[in-house]
Amino acid sequence: MRAAIEVAKANRTPFGAALSMGDEIFVTAANHTKELSDPTAHAEIMAIRKLAEHLKKTNLSGFTLYTTCEPCPMCMSAAIWAKVDAIFYGCTIPEISLFMDQIDMRAEDLNIKSFHRVTILDSVLKDECINLLNKFH
Amino acid sequence: MRAAIEVAKANRTPFGAALSMGDEIFVTAANHTKELSDPTAHAEIMAIRKLAEHLKKTNLSGFTLYTTCEPCPMCMSAAIWAKVDAIFYGCTIPEISLFMDQIDMRAEDLNIKSFHRVTILDSVLKDECINLLNKFH
Repeated sequence: MRAAIEVAKANRTPFGAALSMGDEIFVTAANHTKELSDPTAHAEIMAIRKLAEHLKKTNLSGFTLYTTCEPCPMCMSAAIWAKVDAIFYGCTIPEISLFMDQIDMRAEDLNIKSFHRVTILDSVLKDECINLLNKFH
Repeated sequence: MRAAIEVAKANRTPFGAALSMGDEIFVTAANHTKELSDPTAHAEIMAIRKLAEHLKKTNLSGFTLYTTCEPCPMCMSAAIWAKVDAIFYGCTIPEISLFMDQIDMRAEDLNIKSFHRVTILDSVLKDECINLLNKFH
C-alpha cells in the first residue's frame, strides 16, 4: 500500500494503485483521466493494463491489487476479469463520496455476483489515504 | 447498432460497439482483449477511450453508445463516468451467460446507483447479436 500511496502523491492525485506478487511490486500507477482525456484511466485500470501488457496475458492470477481508494465498479470488474487474487484498499466509497461523485456500488457487492471471487481487505492505511483526498481533491 | 454489429463481424468477435451523436457515427470498436493482452479492452471501453481521446475530453454527454451485448459492470461504469446520454444494446447478460462467464450485475442495477442516469434500451436487433455469439464464441 505504501507504493500505491507514493505514486498517488507523486502524481498529485488521491488515487494510486500497485500490483504485487509476494514481496515484489510489479507495477504502480496513478489516475490519469484528465492528462490522457480517458475517462477509464483510473489508477487500478492503468495498473492492470500495464501489468497485463508487460506479461502479455490477461490473467493476473496470483497478484494482489493495492489501491488507495475502494475500487469503483469499473475497476472492481476489471480486477475480476483479470482474476486477481486479492484487493487491499484504504478509504471506502462512502468516504470518497464526501469529496466527489461516486457510483454507489461497493466492491463486495460486485464480488458476490461474480464468477471469480476476490479476497477483499479494507481500511489499509486508511488515514493516509483520506489525507490524500483532503490534500489533492 | 448496425455499425456495432459490422465491426464485431469484421473482428470475428460477438462484441462490437459504436458511439454516435444524432445520425453521425463517431467511432466503432470491437473487443480486443486477447490481441492487446488487455483484460479491459472490451468493445465499449475501446470505443469510449477512442472517442474521448479524439475529442480531448472525458465528458461524452450527448452521445449514445450502441453495443451488441449488454455492457458488463466495467463497461457500464465507464459509460457512466463518461456521462453518455444513452445505451442501446442487443442481447442481455443472462443470454451472454449461456456462452461464457459473466459478472451477474445488470446495467440498470448500476444505473440506479449512479450520480448520472443513462437512458437504457435493450433487445435492439437482438437476434443478430445472438447470432454473433453463436458464430464467434
